[in-house]
Amino acid sequence: MTTKAQQRKEVLREKLIVAAEERIDRDGVGALRARDLAKDAGCAVGAIYTAYDDLNALIMAVNGRTFQKLGQVVASSVDGAGEETATSRLILMSNAYLGFASDHTNLWRALFDLQMRADDQVPDWYLQALRTLFSHIARPVAELFPDYNHEQLDLMVRALFSSVHGIVLLGLEQRISAVPLAKVEQMIGQVLSQVGQT
Amino acid sequence: MTTKAQQRKEVLREKLIVAAEERIDRDGVGALRARDLAKDAGCAVGAIYTAYDDLNALIMAVNGRTFQKLGQVVASSVDGAGEETATSRLILMSNAYLGFASDHTNLWRALFDLQMRADDQVPDWYLQALRTLFSHIARPVAELFPDYNHEQLDLMVRALFSSVHGIVLLGLEQRISAVPLAKVEQMIGQVLSQVGQT
Repeated sequence: MTTKAQQRKEVLREKLIVAAEERIDRDGVGALRARDLAKDAGCAVGAIYTAYDDLNALIMAVNGRTFQKLGQVVASSVDGAGEETATSRLILMSNAYLGFASDHTNLWRALFDLQMRADDQVPDWYLQALRTLFSHIARPVAELFPDYNHEQLDLMVRALFSSVHGIVLLGLEQRISAVPLAKVEQMIGQVLSQVGQT
Repeated sequence: MTTKAQQRKEVLREKLIVAAEERIDRDGVGALRARDLAKDAGCAVGAIYTAYDDLNALIMAVNGRTFQKLGQVVASSVDGAGEETATSRLILMSNAYLGFASDHTNLWRALFDLQMRADDQVPDWYLQALRTLFSHIARPVAELFPDYNHEQLDLMVRALFSSVHGIVLLGLEQRISAVPLAKVEQMIGQVLSQVGQT
């Protein structure tokens, strides 16, 4: 393959991922259509499949980017919060997670929808991104439970992530029936404060 | 309408709901087809729509039944456990929830998929079933937090339900990558034991 052809392919891949990200963010992953993406990227519908194997591969690429952003948002929420208690830092990270999920609900949902549809082959980048996210959570959790062995710590990190995920997931759905975000934050705070009473 | 026609309609409704429940349980809600249901129930495809407005209405009817069973399973897990601590009873109920979700993953997922698709009009029976489920959880939570006012109690009940839901949801997906159910139970126990340390 010539370098020029490769470059063109790279440019198209980038255009498509930006277009797909915008559309998923606005309309949800279920509304993604090749025809619309081709229009956005200024290419023929068939050209999409020279850049990605199929729409699912493109969605997975978007998910990879979403997970990176999510990780950054969560990590930066405790930048300069080193003086705060471990519980406060867990709450800060959880509220950052809530904020991201609330601002980009469709992109965030796509992360978990993917896994549900193809749970027999969770992609490596997904597991890697999850591990990075967990490593941020692991720091305050290790401070709260200094006697935990590695396995107990790992389970607690997963358990707390899953708990906050559940509160955010059901909280955002219930928002429609007028549960404001502040209440979701309050729920997170209630649970984590109890957990942090060691 | 003659009584006989009404009776026939009732019989068909019952046949269809049993068939739909079996198919959702086995293949998931996404695989439900009118043609298959008609075959199962021994009726013409068109006859389905004399019994239910559309497939979504039939799915909602199945969900109503699923929620009832789920509530019974959760409630009966603490039958005769009155001597146990409030924390132990919360863990028993959570493990019952996990067991139901694990045994009937597709039926259980359909409960929450529905809400995701039509979150602007959550049906009354759904909210009613959720309230019943919450009332079981509220008893031990009220014992753990006797100083909570009504609103704090309500939030804590929702928060703990959501937490356990999140642990079960992500735990069952991770089961595919070989996280056994016992680990999910361990996660539930870790979080709830911490919460229960009042």
